[in-house]
Amino acid sequence: MSLQSFLQQVIREGDLRVRLPVGETLRLGDGSGPPVAVAIASRRWMMRIAANPSMAVGEAYMDGGLVMETGGIHDLVDLIGRNARYRPLKRAGPLARWWLDRRLQANARGVARRNVAHHYDLSVDFYRRFLDPDLQYSCAYFADPRMSLEAAQAAKKQHLAAKLLLERGQRVLDIGCGWGGLALSLARAAEVEVDGITLSTEQLATARGRAEAASLAGRARFSLTDYRDVAGSYDRIVSVGMFEHVGRPNYQAYFDQVARLLKDDGVAVIHSIGRTGGPDTPQSWIAKYIFPGGYIPALSEVLPYVERAGLIVADIEILRLHYAETLRCWRERFAARRAEIAAIYDERFCRMWEFYLSISELAFRYRGHMVFQLQLTKRIDAAPITRDYMAASDPRVAEPVRQVA
Amino acid sequence: MSLQSFLQQVIREGDLRVRLPVGETLRLGDGSGPPVAVAIASRRWMMRIAANPSMAVGEAYMDGGLVMETGGIHDLVDLIGRNARYRPLKRAGPLARWWLDRRLQANARGVARRNVAHHYDLSVDFYRRFLDPDLQYSCAYFADPRMSLEAAQAAKKQHLAAKLLLERGQRVLDIGCGWGGLALSLARAAEVEVDGITLSTEQLATARGRAEAASLAGRARFSLTDYRDVAGSYDRIVSVGMFEHVGRPNYQAYFDQVARLLKDDGVAVIHSIGRTGGPDTPQSWIAKYIFPGGYIPALSEVLPYVERAGLIVADIEILRLHYAETLRCWRERFAARRAEIAAIYDERFCRMWEFYLSISELAFRYRGHMVFQLQLTKRIDAAPITRDYMAASDPRVAEPVRQVA
Repeated sequence: MSLQSFLQQVIREGDLRVRLPVGETLRLGDGSGPPVAVAIASRRWMMRIAANPSMAVGEAYMDGGLVMETGGIHDLVDLIGRNARYRPLKRAGPLARWWLDRRLQANARGVARRNVAHHYDLSVDFYRRFLDPDLQYSCAYFADPRMSLEAAQAAKKQHLAAKLLLERGQRVLDIGCGWGGLALSLARAAEVEVDGITLSTEQLATARGRAEAASLAGRARFSLTDYRDVAGSYDRIVSVGMFEHVGRPNYQAYFDQVARLLKDDGVAVIHSIGRTGGPDTPQSWIAKYIFPGGYIPALSEVLPYVERAGLIVADIEILRLHYAETLRCWRERFAARRAEIAAIYDERFCRMWEFYLSISELAFRYRGHMVFQLQLTKRIDAAPITRDYMAASDPRVAEPVRQVA
Repeated sequence: MSLQSFLQQVIREGDLRVRLPVGETLRLGDGSGPPVAVAIASRRWMMRIAANPSMAVGEAYMDGGLVMETGGIHDLVDLIGRNARYRPLKRAGPLARWWLDRRLQANARGVARRNVAHHYDLSVDFYRRFLDPDLQYSCAYFADPRMSLEAAQAAKKQHLAAKLLLERGQRVLDIGCGWGGLALSLARAAEVEVDGITLSTEQLATARGRAEAASLAGRARFSLTDYRDVAGSYDRIVSVGMFEHVGRPNYQAYFDQVARLLKDDGVAVIHSIGRTGGPDTPQSWIAKYIFPGGYIPALSEVLPYVERAGLIVADIEILRLHYAETLRCWRERFAARRAEIAAIYDERFCRMWEFYLSISELAFRYRGHMVFQLQLTKRIDAAPITRDYMAASDPRVAEPVRQVA
């Protein structure tokens, strides 16, 4: 099928003009919504996009093969998303998944560290440009739809804290602690001892610096440690936005390690992106440019390993659309500081990030991506039998962790 | 291993005396808790129990091969449960599971009806003896641990109603409606049109009679229908304590049917017993005497079929220990009315039911059984993005549905 007839079949809604390098301009959609116009710069780009759109559209935008003439890249991506909204989700066959598991997600220690560095060792000054001041780089919790990003990220920490049932003096492990925001809030508000681990040297330096500045270094300790190498015994384990980097071949090792490190009356909360539509292969452009080694699981892929590890699923919350809103906030902030970011990196980097933020928002808004929060225990009575306590939102967890004079 | 050495290995806690037919009496446990003493009536029973305890203990109690001398059957079962509490849950191999699937759970329409009749066509007068007056024969929701059974069953209906997000005039399908209690409450309180289906002629007659008496027959219609034979289109689907009878070979058909019957913006809530420890085979005594064709799944066994049906998991609540408390209430009520029940049926029937209620309570209290409530949708935005609305408890749903003069 030619690119033209493919586009005509797929784009039914919206107002899209595609200027082809052969001079022709395709008018697609039903004319509704804001007009979007793009130009494809060459026959070579046209052929690459036709042959492998999921990889080549992003590359074309990064490298000037796809030029926005009316609207921005987000408008184009959103228009594509709206048209894909009610199409059934695709599913990869078992052979393709087995091959990709082996090739892309084995994530041995050295590879895992390199994969993490690829994304998270970008300068913290870059992330400060578009994240909230606490540097929460995961799905916020919009307890109220009109919340600011700051408030929604604070609400996320409160929501996690409530599910963790923290008690003063407990030992908490934070697997994938990022720049330390959650660990510091819990250490200060709940007076627990937190060990935060990351594989990013940049995150580690920032987290340690923040702990020192807030006089919390005694209670929130950070280290460059692979989750497979942690020893000890914890009352609580929390892991936010890290499971996406584990890779399917390591799911059993991950949950076995959670079970090993968790005390018998302990509680763990795992927060991760998932997909509602069943198992699938990683999006190829994202796997190449943004998250090498990553994998977004369906819930059905996660639970067998939880059960085999001897962990009890005490609750599963499915956060739908919260990440679409989080990504919208990040995208708008990114756009507002684009010139500064282009000065730190370059134009191609900016376009890569714009594309990444836009297609991620599309995935959550239109293509069945969600965030799941698994609450896990080892004893059937380790958590209360109703979920009422999860509605609590301790205001101390939401307070910004500030430098102490 | 002899029965003696097996028992000595397994029973560490409690105060158990077992009088053997050879004259010897085994003293087992650490002497803690109330004393329990049993006699095994013959060498034949001793050998049967040793060879296949999961089938033969129940049969021995029913048929006089195991006689309680101190304490009741529940005390014995609870003592066994306390000792099993921290033993890892067993898992059946795939071959055993495949064979049992084929042999026991195929549940073709005729077999399904016979299996349902076996249990649910017992006289409603029998069930009235130990259930709450609304005849809720499924796990109650102890919103407060001091609640009566009546209040906890009303709270269960309120909890389901909140998750169903009912609006006046909607069409609701209740798959496995029992004696109609939930359907009638929803029809009256939320002013929805409910189609309740069951395969039990006794339940059907009772549900229809109650609808007539309450002047709700126009809004709550009941029929003897297999879930596979329902046609139409529903805003809401609810199914409480029925999925246990579907059988693994029919999980895809079940969720495909839910997806087919549910409107695009619809919401379904499936409430079922599950096991936390991963897949296993049905308990053999229960499969023979109580629930032929039944199967208690692990969550990991259910979700692949949900995903393949194109349904979105919007929420999963795991009700731990609520069923242990529900069963405790039923057991106590059963004991209080035992003489009446023995007069309707016979002594052996009473012992069978006592054993069933006791080992079910054991399974929920000590052996990782739980109830899961799956909230399912077809659109990612069909339910609100936070769970706050689930805390609502509409008092109209809790009011008893009374006869209208």
